[in-house]
Amino acid sequence: MVHYFDNTATTRVDDDLAEILRVYGTEKFFNPSARSTYSLQISNDVKAARETISRALGASAGNITFTSGGTEANNLAIFGSVRSKRGNIVVTAAEHSSVYNAVSELGSRGYELRLAKVLPDGHIDVEDFLSKVDDETILACFMHVNNETGAVNDVRLLNQAVKEKNNRTVTFSDGVQAVGKVPVNLRYLGVDLYSFAGHKIHCSKGVGALYVKEGVKQLPLQFGGGQERGLRSGTEYVGGIVAFSQAVSNAVKRVDECERLFKGYKQTILNALKDIPDWRVNCSDNVSPAILSLSFADIKGEVLVHMLEKYEIIVGTGSACSSNSKSSRFVKAIELPPRFVEGVVRISFSKYNTADEVQLLADKLAESVLSLRKTMLG
Amino acid sequence: MVHYFDNTATTRVDDDLAEILRVYGTEKFFNPSARSTYSLQISNDVKAARETISRALGASAGNITFTSGGTEANNLAIFGSVRSKRGNIVVTAAEHSSVYNAVSELGSRGYELRLAKVLPDGHIDVEDFLSKVDDETILACFMHVNNETGAVNDVRLLNQAVKEKNNRTVTFSDGVQAVGKVPVNLRYLGVDLYSFAGHKIHCSKGVGALYVKEGVKQLPLQFGGGQERGLRSGTEYVGGIVAFSQAVSNAVKRVDECERLFKGYKQTILNALKDIPDWRVNCSDNVSPAILSLSFADIKGEVLVHMLEKYEIIVGTGSACSSNSKSSRFVKAIELPPRFVEGVVRISFSKYNTADEVQLLADKLAESVLSLRKTMLG
Repeated sequence: MVHYFDNTATTRVDDDLAEILRVYGTEKFFNPSARSTYSLQISNDVKAARETISRALGASAGNITFTSGGTEANNLAIFGSVRSKRGNIVVTAAEHSSVYNAVSELGSRGYELRLAKVLPDGHIDVEDFLSKVDDETILACFMHVNNETGAVNDVRLLNQAVKEKNNRTVTFSDGVQAVGKVPVNLRYLGVDLYSFAGHKIHCSKGVGALYVKEGVKQLPLQFGGGQERGLRSGTEYVGGIVAFSQAVSNAVKRVDECERLFKGYKQTILNALKDIPDWRVNCSDNVSPAILSLSFADIKGEVLVHMLEKYEIIVGTGSACSSNSKSSRFVKAIELPPRFVEGVVRISFSKYNTADEVQLLADKLAESVLSLRKTMLG
Repeated sequence: MVHYFDNTATTRVDDDLAEILRVYGTEKFFNPSARSTYSLQISNDVKAARETISRALGASAGNITFTSGGTEANNLAIFGSVRSKRGNIVVTAAEHSSVYNAVSELGSRGYELRLAKVLPDGHIDVEDFLSKVDDETILACFMHVNNETGAVNDVRLLNQAVKEKNNRTVTFSDGVQAVGKVPVNLRYLGVDLYSFAGHKIHCSKGVGALYVKEGVKQLPLQFGGGQERGLRSGTEYVGGIVAFSQAVSNAVKRVDECERLFKGYKQTILNALKDIPDWRVNCSDNVSPAILSLSFADIKGEVLVHMLEKYEIIVGTGSACSSNSKSSRFVKAIELPPRFVEGVVRISFSKYNTADEVQLLADKLAESVLSLRKTMLG
């Protein structure tokens, strides 16, 4: 039995959602765009999924466009909102690579990129961010929950302040690590664009969504049969979409319960480490209950991860959504003290974690840190 | 029990492939880009899937890029191959909407579109196509198997002839209706780019692939963690990919068997119709064994489809991959005689069809046509 604490990277699919995938694969497999009444039913199921998600997140059904995941949703948000031939884009180095690299691509196409500062705990430096917004700002990207430290940004405040400086600026928040972890009401947050993904909340990989506020004119990136009101052509991954709607609904309902639970888990781990010197919590205020990012001085996070694996405990070192690249961009941005830079361990919880396995993790983590330090001294 | 004859629109997922989706969702759910040895195993599974597909289609593993489906693969082929600021693109009106509309988007961005003719049975008019290729042609799109009539184009010949006229032209063939229906060896076909999709061959919706020949420099459309060697960022839909590789391998192995079987099915249907006047087979030579496109004079295909539904028989009217739009572009292109234009019925087979249900379809189709004609006279 694996003790899985890397739920920021991806999560286990719920059994009942896996069953939905099976049913829509082997029984209700009809193409929603075909002409039969069977297809019409499937098309209605997609519609119902859209409504379920909208209700759960305080949006209207027409706001939700299904994509193949968070990366596509983020790319659709960014490339689909750029209309003018020039202008600047305000973003932070804390953004997920699917936002940062998409925006960088726009940079290489001639748009001006303005990189706002990140505070040492991973929060966006709001003042610095706003100082970079001006009349020529076409897009402002501020993620909701940081995927490395769990820092929760004040999306409502950022959105209002950006719009006050320039109400033509399109505001986009990456909510991939927020939905189901912190309260999300899209009408309250007020942003123009908001993305989220299935596989972070116990649904399958291969499905995500982009919220587009009423009145915001978004352009498609992929063309074809005109599905998703023309914004995202391609045969809908119906099973994934139906399961996703259930996953969003479930996750939103459990936000309070998980917060209570995960706060306790964090405390268990911090207690176990209290007699060990030279470590830090990378973000402790306004932080996602699901993420505990720690740094141990003079220790390599990678080594700790592999030591814990001996006990079938899986934790993360940083963003997993990045193939073969270290998260140096982010670590640089938060200006971790040098001794702590390589010692980052990211622990992230899901509803499948039990208090017992958190205790096991806490004990083995403390033990491993002590043992590594001893080896270094020896 | 539904008698499903719209397998060009989408297919039923095999039970063992649905089980793969379940296992990768609920057990092997690790993120292939994360750091644990569990993730490494998943990453190896993606690698193995790539190799399985390459072997089945006569390619190298490095040639295969996984996407969210045929539409994304086609869009990646088209937008990812356009580098110069100008030039012309040669295409036919017979192409699937995900090719035609993507190319049209390039047209609206200033590239010159050259529309080559389609023969009355849906085949590309090779002579006309080649006459449109010149020194300024940056991209030539010629689908392998037409999704409406089943016409099989000579991709190898088209590729060679295009390259002879201009060896800098990127050649792209949409193989979504070809893989598993007709023999496909990518090295033999010789094209630069070739697309195919899971849900047409008993795998899940939400997964497809683009083949990119060695030496062809393709640009990404979506940016992020650098997955798929940087060509398609985003957490891999691992279960879908593993199931897809199995689906391609299975389908390719059964090409000959299905051809034999489906030819018999077509004959059963044609026999049942032989005493009925005024109908035509829209494509009978060089045609996919899986597709039988018929036109009945003075009858609406849509009405026939709904009559057959009373017997739980599902057939298609035309392309289902197009949301709420009639396939007028294609019908216009093949110049069907006016009386036959609205009477198109597309019957398409899969390995799940039995001889008995084909006989039922044949009988009910003949019966329905006679009954509709009688009503019209009365």
